[in-house]
Amino acid sequence: MMGRYFHEELKDLKQKLLQMGLFVEAAIEKAVDALLNHNRRFAEEVIEEEERINQFEIEIDDKGHSLSALGQPMASDLRLVTAILKINTDLERMGDHAVNIAERTLALFKEPSFDLDLYLPEMARAVLNMLTDALNAFMNEDAELARSVLRKDDEVDTYNDELYTQLSALMEKKPLLVKSGINLIMIGHNLERIADLANNIAEDVVYLKQGKEVRHRVETKS
Amino acid sequence: MMGRYFHEELKDLKQKLLQMGLFVEAAIEKAVDALLNHNRRFAEEVIEEEERINQFEIEIDDKGHSLSALGQPMASDLRLVTAILKINTDLERMGDHAVNIAERTLALFKEPSFDLDLYLPEMARAVLNMLTDALNAFMNEDAELARSVLRKDDEVDTYNDELYTQLSALMEKKPLLVKSGINLIMIGHNLERIADLANNIAEDVVYLKQGKEVRHRVETKS
Repeated sequence: MMGRYFHEELKDLKQKLLQMGLFVEAAIEKAVDALLNHNRRFAEEVIEEEERINQFEIEIDDKGHSLSALGQPMASDLRLVTAILKINTDLERMGDHAVNIAERTLALFKEPSFDLDLYLPEMARAVLNMLTDALNAFMNEDAELARSVLRKDDEVDTYNDELYTQLSALMEKKPLLVKSGINLIMIGHNLERIADLANNIAEDVVYLKQGKEVRHRVETKS
Repeated sequence: MMGRYFHEELKDLKQKLLQMGLFVEAAIEKAVDALLNHNRRFAEEVIEEEERINQFEIEIDDKGHSLSALGQPMASDLRLVTAILKINTDLERMGDHAVNIAERTLALFKEPSFDLDLYLPEMARAVLNMLTDALNAFMNEDAELARSVLRKDDEVDTYNDELYTQLSALMEKKPLLVKSGINLIMIGHNLERIADLANNIAEDVVYLKQGKEVRHRVETKS
């Protein structure tokens, strides 16, 4: 039987995961800011702060595993620990993508700049909204909010397709911008992957609340 | 105390994971074959077979979670179950990358073809060797072999950088080949991600054998 100790620890762990989520969210926001406002310092900060995200991941992973090894948790508690461990991995991967966006942004700053009304700000906003909602859905165990996240993934994919079309046309016309175009396509790809990972979190919340498998209904892309 | 039942089940689970690994390995090989030998049928097969990989993942995930909820496993057994669950996720993601390579290959077939001696065959061979070794290291709990996988990741990164340099130069010179170039860069990116995931598996094997954390020493890229 689980005592008060276990549930206190589980609550702490959930809180720590939220802390990590907010940190990762801030990193993505800063990477996007670096790109849109041509801010080199922000990009460098995102790269430096990756270490902190990795530390979060290891702490939560260790804690989660010792909790699930502790006594015989009830099925619902075990499901929560499992969800925390999964979300932990998803957040760490988002952190990697934020770093990648920052790196691509720095590479971009070395190339000739150009004016083109790209869908990047809208896409980034949609992705960040998905993440915020997914984290809130997890904290409040709100399956409805989680389902709304799942529905937004298509919107992000559409932005990404649009971005690709814009950029490949640009690159065909202006060979000087080929390297910039590749970097921007990769940034779009990273944003799209972050959306997929927010989707994963939302799926875990639905599973947690309803014990129902929604994975592989909305397919992830790579 | 764990009985014979638990250990039989654990052995079965490990066997099932190997089966999945071989299936994923075959899918990657087939996707690469489709690309290098201009075989549309192979690419389509990889896309069709993704469903099988997703089924594997769900089965192994369910089984692993019910095993770890069963009684109070010893720490070493629990570590093995955790490793199986992680590798399961990694393999499923590799399957996604194989599908992505197949899709990019089909897109490539619509574009004008060109002759260029790219590093793709060498890169693909290096990636597949990493995966084979990582799976063998896991099955035989061979930390030495796992460490050799970690060392090969740099080689794959070098191939990928080389590929990028070749392709961006080509795209700058021949705008007609911009779309082909993007598809090939994304194929290289997918191969590189598969190498990172093989790396993850190797890290899990080292951790399993030595209880030592090697994550975040070799950083993953995205």
